[in-house]
Amino acid sequence: MHDPKPIQTELDRVVDFWLKYSHDKEHGGFFNCLGKDGKVYDELKYVWLQGRQVWMYSRLYRTVERFHRPEILDAAKSGAAFLQKFARVQASSGAGKCAFCLTRDGRAVKVQRTIFSECFYVMAMDELSRITQDKEMQADAESMMDRLIFWVQTDSSDLSRPQLPGDPPVNSMAVPMMLLCLVDQLTEGRTDVAEKYKDLSGWCVERIIQHIQRDGNAILENVTLTGKELPGCQGRLQNPGHALEAGWFLLEYALKKEDVQLQKTAVDKFMEIPFHTGWDKQHGGLFYFLDVDGHCPTQLEWNMKLWWPHCEALIAYLMAYSHSRAPLLLDRFKLIYDYTFSHFSDEEHGEWFGYLSRQGEVVLDFKGGPFKGFFHVPRCLYMCEKLLDGLLERQDS
Amino acid sequence: MHDPKPIQTELDRVVDFWLKYSHDKEHGGFFNCLGKDGKVYDELKYVWLQGRQVWMYSRLYRTVERFHRPEILDAAKSGAAFLQKFARVQASSGAGKCAFCLTRDGRAVKVQRTIFSECFYVMAMDELSRITQDKEMQADAESMMDRLIFWVQTDSSDLSRPQLPGDPPVNSMAVPMMLLCLVDQLTEGRTDVAEKYKDLSGWCVERIIQHIQRDGNAILENVTLTGKELPGCQGRLQNPGHALEAGWFLLEYALKKEDVQLQKTAVDKFMEIPFHTGWDKQHGGLFYFLDVDGHCPTQLEWNMKLWWPHCEALIAYLMAYSHSRAPLLLDRFKLIYDYTFSHFSDEEHGEWFGYLSRQGEVVLDFKGGPFKGFFHVPRCLYMCEKLLDGLLERQDS
Repeated sequence: MHDPKPIQTELDRVVDFWLKYSHDKEHGGFFNCLGKDGKVYDELKYVWLQGRQVWMYSRLYRTVERFHRPEILDAAKSGAAFLQKFARVQASSGAGKCAFCLTRDGRAVKVQRTIFSECFYVMAMDELSRITQDKEMQADAESMMDRLIFWVQTDSSDLSRPQLPGDPPVNSMAVPMMLLCLVDQLTEGRTDVAEKYKDLSGWCVERIIQHIQRDGNAILENVTLTGKELPGCQGRLQNPGHALEAGWFLLEYALKKEDVQLQKTAVDKFMEIPFHTGWDKQHGGLFYFLDVDGHCPTQLEWNMKLWWPHCEALIAYLMAYSHSRAPLLLDRFKLIYDYTFSHFSDEEHGEWFGYLSRQGEVVLDFKGGPFKGFFHVPRCLYMCEKLLDGLLERQDS
Repeated sequence: MHDPKPIQTELDRVVDFWLKYSHDKEHGGFFNCLGKDGKVYDELKYVWLQGRQVWMYSRLYRTVERFHRPEILDAAKSGAAFLQKFARVQASSGAGKCAFCLTRDGRAVKVQRTIFSECFYVMAMDELSRITQDKEMQADAESMMDRLIFWVQTDSSDLSRPQLPGDPPVNSMAVPMMLLCLVDQLTEGRTDVAEKYKDLSGWCVERIIQHIQRDGNAILENVTLTGKELPGCQGRLQNPGHALEAGWFLLEYALKKEDVQLQKTAVDKFMEIPFHTGWDKQHGGLFYFLDVDGHCPTQLEWNMKLWWPHCEALIAYLMAYSHSRAPLLLDRFKLIYDYTFSHFSDEEHGEWFGYLSRQGEVVLDFKGGPFKGFFHVPRCLYMCEKLLDGLLERQDS
């Protein structure tokens, strides 16, 4: 049977999977580790994934009519309550740090020396507070955001990363990219907040642009704080999925700002280059890591095909196509779409597999794990549905 | 041409590879990151691997006549001097902690919150001091060892691991296994030192034995401090290579102690079980990680075939066979030998590849990397050569 709206149908199936299997009705929050059939194989709760699931439920509830359902809002509230109660670590140092991982009943298991648990906490609270009009929750998001900015721009000692003489601070793509995403989240429809974070978004864009290296021919994952190439493997690392994700964050920002030059940079540099370097011409799919000089990366999983870079690529190319209507970008979207839907989506049990071998076989068969939750797949499907609807509307008008 | 002594020849080739490509004549110590042809692709120096290389050179120099060569001793001394000068981190907290990774000129890049950099430091200094009769170096090894024991048995706060309510202390196989190996190193030929560490070796054996779970049918990588199974993925994790390595450490200890029951446990539990669970009946080779209940492990590399578990398996089965002469153990050795030599050894450039896909293709083609140095391959070949020589001698007599 031909499905006229495959992306919408897929999004429904994905939402149903998490609604059915991931809710912890006893302790609140979500189980993250779900087997291929949805069974819980580990009860740990990962803060990144808790925050992302709250955000995604809230965003769907707020902006997509068919998801404006009480069970979805209730689930978002349950996740947010769990996070507000348990995510913050009680420690003498590291004021305001969130754990990376909690037990089922909320005891801290692990704390990372990075900012990402806090980032997803901010996304969650801001998005949910837009529905509930909970001013305290919105203030909680903003104060966590301000702490994050302090850690990144002023003093990172709360993160407990020792300053070591051989390890100067690095501009890793993830940080400015994530902060730009948060600025977009917090400022939607709020001119006063937009004004507050105006400098920060400029700073993020500048830091992202610094990753364009080798005379404009490569996007490198790690550079110096002044935008120079770093030595060794760290400096030569390419992460095509991250570059593509940064690409659509940048493009979205540049469209809002009506910055034509930045729009061009987003597409030509952050979408075209990762495709040329990252697409596996032999087996299809996007590599996870590559070395710009062709050395073998030291990451054991470098040649695996992960779900999330494909999700980011779908959003990036469809967004770029929606804007420019350049046929090449639609070709890219279709190529990635065909690979993604034929390899990752699980017809039998729903949701997507996350981890394939280079050859495209499923190597890890769970649907949820320590780094795979209710986020990249539904965000991709949600964004693509919106973009396709926009294209159709404009066609009709 | 038939090589009558393939293991000896292979060891010579491996030693030559590292002598030729890994020495840093400018700053001392060793380059660790060597491409398939020996070219340095990253200049970082990993303390585990520096220590292991010093140990291996020293052991070969001290105990194998054809390696009793000045260039090998000089290399060991250069590595030890580099470590003594640079490995210790200058920090307000964490007295005596060694870095995990250094720049080429010795500046700390990363410090792990574990004990293993220090362990390999001890191995290196003790072995080299046995050649040079350097009493200060021997004392350096012993004092580092005593600090290690303090961290493991009394107070781990120097390791800077925050105590978190959801993360009670765990008995991971690596710790008692490594300490038993160190006791063996430090006590060789020294009855006074053996007396000093007598309780510790008993403690190590007890902690290793606790990993026998499921009514004696499984070796689990992580258990509670009282030898109970832990919940979730962490508790169900199996690492066949580690179990086999623990197996030959235990067997060696039990042979010295003439403890027949422990010899049987070493073979029946730590060598037979990991073979039955870990050998890939479809493609050959030992899996890296498995879940005892058959869930998919969350480690992305779980189904890869790594060089080191195969090295440990070769030592384990040959040692067990040398002792018992049970034909089954020789069959195991031959099976692993055939897989290992046909898949890992690189005829073209020498040394071994380290990382194969499940199907046995080389996926990472470097010879040295952050976790692969001059250690598992030469130790395996050295041990097997000794064991085979022993078997031949006894046959002749």
